[in-house]
Amino acid sequence: MNLLSSLMPTLHTMTNVVNDQTAELFQFHRGQDVFFMLMLVAFLMMFIRRYEWGVALATLLVFATSFPLYMLANVGIFGAAIDVELIIGAAFCAITLVIAIGVFLGHISTIAYLVVGVLFVPGYMLIEWFMFSFLDGVLDAGGSILVHMFAAYWGWGVILGLRNKAVNNEPAATSVHSVSFVWLASMLLMVLWPSFVTALLPPEDVIPGMANTYLAMVASILATYLILWALKRTIDPLVFTYAILAGGVAIGASVDLATPLQSWIIGLVAGAVSTLSFLFLDEWLRDKTGVWDTMGVHNLHGVPGIVGGLVPIVLGFAGGSQAVAVVGTLVIGLVLGVIVGLILRLFPRPTVMLDDAEAFPAEEMRATDPA
Amino acid sequence: MNLLSSLMPTLHTMTNVVNDQTAELFQFHRGQDVFFMLMLVAFLMMFIRRYEWGVALATLLVFATSFPLYMLANVGIFGAAIDVELIIGAAFCAITLVIAIGVFLGHISTIAYLVVGVLFVPGYMLIEWFMFSFLDGVLDAGGSILVHMFAAYWGWGVILGLRNKAVNNEPAATSVHSVSFVWLASMLLMVLWPSFVTALLPPEDVIPGMANTYLAMVASILATYLILWALKRTIDPLVFTYAILAGGVAIGASVDLATPLQSWIIGLVAGAVSTLSFLFLDEWLRDKTGVWDTMGVHNLHGVPGIVGGLVPIVLGFAGGSQAVAVVGTLVIGLVLGVIVGLILRLFPRPTVMLDDAEAFPAEEMRATDPA
Amino acid sequence: MNLLSSLMPTLHTMTNVVNDQTAELFQFHRGQDVFFMLMLVAFLMMFIRRYEWGVALATLLVFATSFPLYMLANVGIFGAAIDVELIIGAAFCAITLVIAIGVFLGHISTIAYLVVGVLFVPGYMLIEWFMFSFLDGVLDAGGSILVHMFAAYWGWGVILGLRNKAVNNEPAATSVHSVSFVWLASMLLMVLWPSFVTALLPPEDVIPGMANTYLAMVASILATYLILWALKRTIDPLVFTYAILAGGVAIGASVDLATPLQSWIIGLVAGAVSTLSFLFLDEWLRDKTGVWDTMGVHNLHGVPGIVGGLVPIVLGFAGGSQAVAVVGTLVIGLVLGVIVGLILRLFPRPTVMLDDAEAFPAEEMRATDPA
Repeated sequence: MNLLSSLMPTLHTMTNVVNDQTAELFQFHRGQDVFFMLMLVAFLMMFIRRYEWGVALATLLVFATSFPLYMLANVGIFGAAIDVELIIGAAFCAITLVIAIGVFLGHISTIAYLVVGVLFVPGYMLIEWFMFSFLDGVLDAGGSILVHMFAAYWGWGVILGLRNKAVNNEPAATSVHSVSFVWLASMLLMVLWPSFVTALLPPEDVIPGMANTYLAMVASILATYLILWALKRTIDPLVFTYAILAGGVAIGASVDLATPLQSWIIGLVAGAVSTLSFLFLDEWLRDKTGVWDTMGVHNLHGVPGIVGGLVPIVLGFAGGSQAVAVVGTLVIGLVLGVIVGLILRLFPRPTVMLDDAEAFPAEEMRATDPA
Repeated sequence: MNLLSSLMPTLHTMTNVVNDQTAELFQFHRGQDVFFMLMLVAFLMMFIRRYEWGVALATLLVFATSFPLYMLANVGIFGAAIDVELIIGAAFCAITLVIAIGVFLGHISTIAYLVVGVLFVPGYMLIEWFMFSFLDGVLDAGGSILVHMFAAYWGWGVILGLRNKAVNNEPAATSVHSVSFVWLASMLLMVLWPSFVTALLPPEDVIPGMANTYLAMVASILATYLILWALKRTIDPLVFTYAILAGGVAIGASVDLATPLQSWIIGLVAGAVSTLSFLFLDEWLRDKTGVWDTMGVHNLHGVPGIVGGLVPIVLGFAGGSQAVAVVGTLVIGLVLGVIVGLILRLFPRPTVMLDDAEAFPAEEMRATDPA
Repeated sequence: MNLLSSLMPTLHTMTNVVNDQTAELFQFHRGQDVFFMLMLVAFLMMFIRRYEWGVALATLLVFATSFPLYMLANVGIFGAAIDVELIIGAAFCAITLVIAIGVFLGHISTIAYLVVGVLFVPGYMLIEWFMFSFLDGVLDAGGSILVHMFAAYWGWGVILGLRNKAVNNEPAATSVHSVSFVWLASMLLMVLWPSFVTALLPPEDVIPGMANTYLAMVASILATYLILWALKRTIDPLVFTYAILAGGVAIGASVDLATPLQSWIIGLVAGAVSTLSFLFLDEWLRDKTGVWDTMGVHNLHGVPGIVGGLVPIVLGFAGGSQAVAVVGTLVIGLVLGVIVGLILRLFPRPTVMLDDAEAFPAEEMRATDPA
């Protein structure tokens, strides 16, 4: 029937309109999960038993500056519309910074985090432009490079610029309470991770991405446990809870391309690499540079981010520009971070470090008897 | 082609049917988030280190009574259908009560919360009728007036009626553990807040509402931090974690109307007003009335609720009926609360206050060694 | 008009296509909530104050083995497609095992959980086949039988096979911290429960299922509180936080069939039965068998699971095959569990039980001063 086929385009358009609105509505919750993860990253970093509230406060201050600034810059300078993609983009910017401050938490005074939030945004937008406008064919739907690598190397740039070595001498004891919060954060981050890596993917890639992400993450659990057990006969919970997330970090660049089996193997490799970084690379870097990555960001986000960034090349989906993106993000991240670190030296250093007493009336409020 | 246009209404109807079902499915998760927030409100109130389980128990008891009673009343008396809007409406009723009990937690014995749940529902339904049936043109999609203001003033009515001044003399010490739970609750409430204020909005208003809500909340973080730092040089975590939510409280009435910039300013004002209420108004009210708002509900929900309720007038979207809704909710809330407070005087007062030992075998279960 | 009606099937197909994709996207979040609940079950079991990290680790190890193995078996042997239903099915398998290990947590050494994960999957798949392929007309959309009953009786089979009575003599003291985490887990499990029981239902059953589930759960709160108060005059938080979830366990088999009022009554009965099991049956079983169900799994999942499994018969929706499913799952679960328990006897027993020191450098990391 001729009429029917002549109607088909109209029908298609209409059902696609429905689909577009549905897809956008559906992105609301994936986007919200990214904000959820941003908060959980704070709890992942609360293992120092005298330094919990300070971590939460720093997280909120950089969130409160970077999130609206990213939106303002995109709307004001580039004329972007305030839609769900921009909200998610701004949340990505903010969570990248929350990960990055993990490198230098305790190194600067609380009020300086407001400055950090302002100085971070232009750098992040530069990397976005570098990866997706300057370069061509870079694959990074889930942020292995843009979020994790940039966070780690920008943060390392900051401590290299700051060179506040006094913080190395601060005690960083843990407690059951503080470490159990880390377990909570790690386990819930694992659950929400598929929302993060598929947040900006089209609807048809979301379910395969969900399968790939969970497969990568359970493989990281396995690799981390087996390596720690084989080498140490005891499980350091601060290595375990971090390294099991490496699968999520590494799957980011190929979440929409890898097969389920490939995803599981990516998770296995990432978990192993992250565990080994915590066990060996961490101390080597501290010895070489004299500065201390407070939360081990390099071991979870830096190295597994590189692994993830290179996966699309290994799997044959990407070429030279992908390698340029990985190397470029590392170098640009470090340089931009050093600049920010040097600027932060202009601000007074905290007299109390890695302790809530720096910002809070902590002595009065910390009961010695926990009942 | 004539036939095509004659078919269009049919097509429209069909795609709209799809849209309606999609919208309803989509409301499932926004509704679920409201229940999530209801539980988080309990953890926001757990800062007294000997009074954690009692807060959770009271929350569950008022939830268990008010939620089904609201549904029963609407189905039984008004013939409402059990659809997602009714479930969300009942969750709104229950969360309003959970906020309200924050005013008098510790003032009454545990079993009396069952009575509180039963007595609250008719009053809440009266305010719903007053705002949306008796009055015309009242704007309050996100509950600035219906949820936050009513919770605060109804709760204040209850303590004024109860006049259990003995609770003022109880110690209310905190611990790292108890305050860190408050940080968790506050930070996750912030994440879920867009679901709350857009729960009953049509699909096309959800994404703009999401942007407005997060912008209002990050502005509150900024205002709260800067005012506390300027006035006190130290951040009281129990003021900070509460006041940063004021942007969410105040955006409620105009979440679907304000521009993003207006939303950010609303959050700035609400955060400032809430912080100042905690710092100055709280003590003044305690001195004047002789009773104590255990959780500072008035400072987070009362005053920012009034601010939020008046915003649609300031922005030119609403007129006199909006002002009548604000004033009426304050007065009716107080009067209904006093009546409930007087009824609650008929029940035996708790011998142990602000302590889990009132309801639980706490002495046996609270290990003195936290390991 | 003849042409219009001739077009209708096409239109229907197209709008249904939209619906199918929407439904699948929508299942993403219900599925994710099941993973969230899996993690929360770990926190529900963290009440022993020296045994928190060990519970989290065991949970992650059985998740990391059972989840990919279930997917692999279904894809490799039965040619299943990797879609959202398979992901959710695998999550159901994994959460069933996480519930089940609650029976014998602390009875086996940590590394043995990897073996447990491998041995569990074939048994779970056998029960799936038994209930939905061998039998006909079994109703269990929300897993009262497949998840809860099977978890409880398989787990009990394991401890009966293991017979590690030494664990009975270990101290299992609680702390404010450990019990407050249980409150958090229980209250959030309640919130997410509708996602679990409706995860595999068609879209039109999701909202009614949401209403039914919340109604069943609030009824359990009421029944649990009133019975504990009437019989004990004090609320044991470890009975209360568990038994209030019994309504969710019992509604599983009839969530898509029961009326709201029936659901509330199911919750009332389940809460009462679970509370009484904790108060009386638990000790009786320990006396009779000499072994100890560490987390009281039988009282929350076993008995309320039986109640829930039988509900469709009482309501007239199911017949004899439903009874066969209930009895068969109990018997097959016990037998399969005993076999796994006997195999686990081949592995070295843990020298330290119910203590994080079994797997972690706990003595160094547990600060005695919690500050």
